[in-house]
Amino acid sequence: VDREEKIVLQEIKIGLLGLGTVGSGVYRILTERQKFLAQKTGLNFIPKRILVRDLGRKRAVAVDPGLLTTDPTQVVAHPEIDLVVEVLGGVEPARSLIAAALQAKKSVITANKELIATHGAQLYQLAREQGVDLFFEASVAGGIPILGPLQHSLAGEDIEAVYGIVNGTTNYILTAMTEQARSYADVLAEAQALGYAEADPTADVAGHDAARKLAILAALAFDQYVDLDDVYCEGIEKIKPADIAFASQLGYVVKLVAIARKKAAGLEARVHPALVPAGHPLAGIKGVFNGIIVEGWAVGSLLFTGAGAGQMPTGSAVVGDIVAAAKNYVAGQRGKPGLGFVKKSRVLPMEEVENSYYLRLQVEAGTMAVAKVVRHLSEAGVELKTLEICKGNEQVDLILKTSTVKEGIFMQVLSLLQAERDIKQVDAVIRCLVE
Amino acid sequence: VDREEKIVLQEIKIGLLGLGTVGSGVYRILTERQKFLAQKTGLNFIPKRILVRDLGRKRAVAVDPGLLTTDPTQVVAHPEIDLVVEVLGGVEPARSLIAAALQAKKSVITANKELIATHGAQLYQLAREQGVDLFFEASVAGGIPILGPLQHSLAGEDIEAVYGIVNGTTNYILTAMTEQARSYADVLAEAQALGYAEADPTADVAGHDAARKLAILAALAFDQYVDLDDVYCEGIEKIKPADIAFASQLGYVVKLVAIARKKAAGLEARVHPALVPAGHPLAGIKGVFNGIIVEGWAVGSLLFTGAGAGQMPTGSAVVGDIVAAAKNYVAGQRGKPGLGFVKKSRVLPMEEVENSYYLRLQVEAGTMAVAKVVRHLSEAGVELKTLEICKGNEQVDLILKTSTVKEGIFMQVLSLLQAERDIKQVDAVIRCLVE
Repeated sequence: VDREEKIVLQEIKIGLLGLGTVGSGVYRILTERQKFLAQKTGLNFIPKRILVRDLGRKRAVAVDPGLLTTDPTQVVAHPEIDLVVEVLGGVEPARSLIAAALQAKKSVITANKELIATHGAQLYQLAREQGVDLFFEASVAGGIPILGPLQHSLAGEDIEAVYGIVNGTTNYILTAMTEQARSYADVLAEAQALGYAEADPTADVAGHDAARKLAILAALAFDQYVDLDDVYCEGIEKIKPADIAFASQLGYVVKLVAIARKKAAGLEARVHPALVPAGHPLAGIKGVFNGIIVEGWAVGSLLFTGAGAGQMPTGSAVVGDIVAAAKNYVAGQRGKPGLGFVKKSRVLPMEEVENSYYLRLQVEAGTMAVAKVVRHLSEAGVELKTLEICKGNEQVDLILKTSTVKEGIFMQVLSLLQAERDIKQVDAVIRCLVE
Repeated sequence: VDREEKIVLQEIKIGLLGLGTVGSGVYRILTERQKFLAQKTGLNFIPKRILVRDLGRKRAVAVDPGLLTTDPTQVVAHPEIDLVVEVLGGVEPARSLIAAALQAKKSVITANKELIATHGAQLYQLAREQGVDLFFEASVAGGIPILGPLQHSLAGEDIEAVYGIVNGTTNYILTAMTEQARSYADVLAEAQALGYAEADPTADVAGHDAARKLAILAALAFDQYVDLDDVYCEGIEKIKPADIAFASQLGYVVKLVAIARKKAAGLEARVHPALVPAGHPLAGIKGVFNGIIVEGWAVGSLLFTGAGAGQMPTGSAVVGDIVAAAKNYVAGQRGKPGLGFVKKSRVLPMEEVENSYYLRLQVEAGTMAVAKVVRHLSEAGVELKTLEICKGNEQVDLILKTSTVKEGIFMQVLSLLQAERDIKQVDAVIRCLVE
């Protein structure tokens, strides 16, 4: 007899809400690595009940049909279940079911960024009141450990900024547009065919998914939460191959970045495309990968990269949280969350945020337009960093980069430029990550 | 009156062993960020006693002279001190002082890689017996949170490999040799002048420092500790600009890598220069920066990068551990370390480790030498991946890369080649990170 089998391990019984992509990954890790996890943690993790919509549906993962139920109370109110894992996604019924589980004094692990970004403060408060844990590492950047380090290893660090690439779909699209000089629509269609983008891609391409992750990152980095509506959000739908090519000539790549930065007057919190210098660590994050930079007063700049999504990476993050919650449960140490969701942040209006800008304008031939652009910028105290005049057969383009200026001032300059008859139209305005 | 000042915070009194570079960084963070830390943690961190060698010495950091002592018992046995921070470096007296502090039931935070790599198991055991914590995040890769994520966020992950660039001095030297086509001796002298390399640089350039960090990483990644003597260790002293240039032509950069990898028969644990493909994430880690890759069964490949040394980044890692140890202290939850140092690993002998190899040979003119190289490799079942013949005025060089082969077999082939009269000498043998 194998000696290990004789040791009676404490059982941790898990209720799973959902058995989709991430849920199946969690189930696979818990069952295929059950013995490994037992050796590593001294705990025996047992999936006990799994909420599904359809009991008869064929599944990619082999699950004991006796575990499946369509009745959520069989999970969230089951007397034997110690931990509840929510991988349904969306706000409802996830919110109500998590609340019910917390009220039944069960610690909850969730991968649900939409829910935590919008109801994190309320659910955190409920978990605190009930003396149980609410963990959500998998809600940001899939398998990359980022919320854990922010709360633990960096607990003594005065964090100044958290920013990076947190949406794999848009990074895949921008990478393909860059490397293959293809249009947004063309690459989006391919990404949809490959399953990297949803049939309705809005949440990803309009930046909403990145904004949700940013709200969660900001809450844990700055011990303040932000109202999701206060996060400025601009997607990649209008990015043109021409601008990617011009950016490349200037030594930049175009990325969708999410930025949270502590300022004296409040918090910057914004998601938008940005020109990233080719030598910058974020420029090397390609395809569906994610990369997050943490800047701290003492530690300087840290970069965390890895798979930002996917069944097994996201499942790994959920299981990491399951192990942590189980250890707290066994030690009688549940319900000691950080400060993350206590105070609400003042988010700076976008007009107050400083950026440098890339601009592409269609102008009348001749030197008048250039002179006007230079004059309007200079009158507003904005420096011209680079200027390229591009004469085609039918049109003249000005491509320029400005010095750093408050967005409000820059937008006033832009209105003045648009009112000039020599300036036919503004074809692109993209912020730069660094001047 | 500021409302915050009225709240009576729990005080955590800290004893510091050492006030050198890292110690001064810790002191600066604790004092310059005292109010910030109090708001963030609800605890008031107070440096209480600091062990120094010379009370009268002038210091870069302004310290209340009343805190300084030359008597270690004033720190490790002080009845009011809750946590002891060891930043002396070296094995003794650090080991004895840490043991005394643990025996006095004080949790200990150390940045001492040499000590943990050699006496980690013994000190871990003592901490466990005494029911206190022993934390050492700062001992590996300065400010980069890596030991924390390995123990917490990745607690549910079956980790297959941990590898990367963990020594800033050698990475600075190799980066300068690569970018400026300079010799090892030349760049080393410059690094010494700039303070990036010690007067006696052996610990860094011979790979010992990286081996110590690898031993600690392996202990936490695989829940097994390794005997430092079992870690294969080869430094950068013999790396020639010629090989850096040839590697570059082939699409590689030369880096000093530390690799720990779980295999069925045991653990690979080794430090040596390696050819890293130019597109590999580690190729982009330049200068004094560190980069560590964690490969897990479910999570795939994660990369952690940042400053691998320096006063403030290393100080930040120490303070992160101080906060964690203080939280455990306040919660009455000390002395629950992971499994890291319980079992001893079987480290595979280097002959059993598989690599592909870069080789530079000086040969007699004519085709005989090439034929012999090809025959010996092929008889041993080794494929030739690339072959370049480089004819100079006075000598003919063969530059080649092999397929993956066990080191023992490759070394036999190398002996056969060295015995051939057509092959004048072997000028370089460098392992490749990936075939």
